[in-house]
Amino acid sequence: MTQLIAGVETGGTKIVAAVARVDDPGRIIDEIEIPTTAPEEVGARLRAFLERHEGITHAGIAAFGPVDIDPNSPGFGSVTATPKPGWAGAPLADLVGGRPHTIVSDVTGAALGEHALGASSGILDSAYITIGTGVGVGALIGGRPFSDTAHPELGHIAMRRHPDDDFAGVCPFHGGDCVEGLAAGPAIAKRWGRPTRELGDLLERAVETEAHYLGQLIATVTYAYRPQRIVIGGGAMKIPGLLDAVREASVREIRGALGAEHPSNHPDTYLVPPGLGDRAGVIGALHLAAARAA
Amino acid sequence: MTQLIAGVETGGTKIVAAVARVDDPGRIIDEIEIPTTAPEEVGARLRAFLERHEGITHAGIAAFGPVDIDPNSPGFGSVTATPKPGWAGAPLADLVGGRPHTIVSDVTGAALGEHALGASSGILDSAYITIGTGVGVGALIGGRPFSDTAHPELGHIAMRRHPDDDFAGVCPFHGGDCVEGLAAGPAIAKRWGRPTRELGDLLERAVETEAHYLGQLIATVTYAYRPQRIVIGGGAMKIPGLLDAVREASVREIRGALGAEHPSNHPDTYLVPPGLGDRAGVIGALHLAAARAA
Repeated sequence: MTQLIAGVETGGTKIVAAVARVDDPGRIIDEIEIPTTAPEEVGARLRAFLERHEGITHAGIAAFGPVDIDPNSPGFGSVTATPKPGWAGAPLADLVGGRPHTIVSDVTGAALGEHALGASSGILDSAYITIGTGVGVGALIGGRPFSDTAHPELGHIAMRRHPDDDFAGVCPFHGGDCVEGLAAGPAIAKRWGRPTRELGDLLERAVETEAHYLGQLIATVTYAYRPQRIVIGGGAMKIPGLLDAVREASVREIRGALGAEHPSNHPDTYLVPPGLGDRAGVIGALHLAAARAA
Repeated sequence: MTQLIAGVETGGTKIVAAVARVDDPGRIIDEIEIPTTAPEEVGARLRAFLERHEGITHAGIAAFGPVDIDPNSPGFGSVTATPKPGWAGAPLADLVGGRPHTIVSDVTGAALGEHALGASSGILDSAYITIGTGVGVGALIGGRPFSDTAHPELGHIAMRRHPDDDFAGVCPFHGGDCVEGLAAGPAIAKRWGRPTRELGDLLERAVETEAHYLGQLIATVTYAYRPQRIVIGGGAMKIPGLLDAVREASVREIRGALGAEHPSNHPDTYLVPPGLGDRAGVIGALHLAAARAA
């Protein structure tokens, strides 16, 4: 019997699961998309999908978070804090019917996917940053998550304020004192009083302000994990001109502190958009499963 | 013949080398201290010391930095940028006569030492922060450096300004726009116009200002590496009352963003002074050598 693996990405609105052969995790055999309703309902549908395939030996789960992946913690294997009804504390193992599994954060899953088949393919140490409803960071060292027991929470790092920005911020913990509170999608929409896709005449100021903060985030991720490439995605990065502005801001921020040879001096290749779009998470989950099953 | 290992810590003013048995790296058999003069002179004395001991199979080197530990880099095995005459680009392999060796940053060496025998003994994931001439961070995941090819450069992270602080800063790259420029020893001395040991009536303000910045640094290290304990040392941490102020500031900074169970909520055990003082580096280098020789 062919040995199979499963990849599951749980998101705030939908859950995607896919099955592949352990020796060919890039080729998806079967796939399902399930709306993120209550975990019991999602679990029943997901288990029914997995049961259609005999021989699944391991599942990779890229979960929206924060998620507790520390085996020594009482909350191991569950989402720790989420406004999503029913999901806080729900055991993710139930989603895969108790099959052997490995859990990473959704952003770590995306980092693994981009490393396997996307924009950071062939790059030893890489990071994935998403700027969406929140700010998330995944970091790979040698192609593996930098830790097996925790994921980065860099959405909460402090920021040097833009001189013209007195926005109060939206982080439930930090208000306007962290990058998520100042620069995630909801912060952009609230500061400018418009959805991020309709900034219109405010676009230039919005891009400059946003790049001021994201440049600091890129610098911190660079200093912390020393990646050779950073992939940056998420809904907010679709704002026209923002990627280039963040590239410039990251160079201004680092200011050569890592030497003239450092890849961050070349932001067009250092800071890149995703190659796999919103497919990175499930592809990363499949590759994670293949690596851990083997 | 008993298999031996060597540990070398290179510092800005002195170099310490020690020899131990590979199966007992905590018990030092022989030791030497050499002033940090030109690298050729240091190398000659160090090699003569090592030659007194037959059977040294591996050397651990904890080097002042920034140091290039990426085997794929042309500058591999050397200090990349230092005002120390003769040391920029000098091959550290020469110090140990070309013996098999592993290089880490001095702060990573201190982290390894504290993990082996000091204040983070028994802690799976830990970090070491030094606040001295500069700001340095070492991070261990599962007791090992988080990366074998690079070390953190978190001394350059951006800071949210203290509202009463308009000090221009001293970082050659960032002025007052990074934690090293605002909060390392030279910044403290210059801001207040006094050595850090003679703050006198300025002590209270100096401690409050310093804690404001170091609280942000602790938070970022916490978010990035998710350690269960952080050891903080360096000359500036000897300022009376500073450690407690930084503990309080780190709790104010994180504000429960990692949940009520997170160890950072208990700063007396989360953020601790070194257990080995200035011996951590050489002890860490010996344990590094023992781990890599084995």
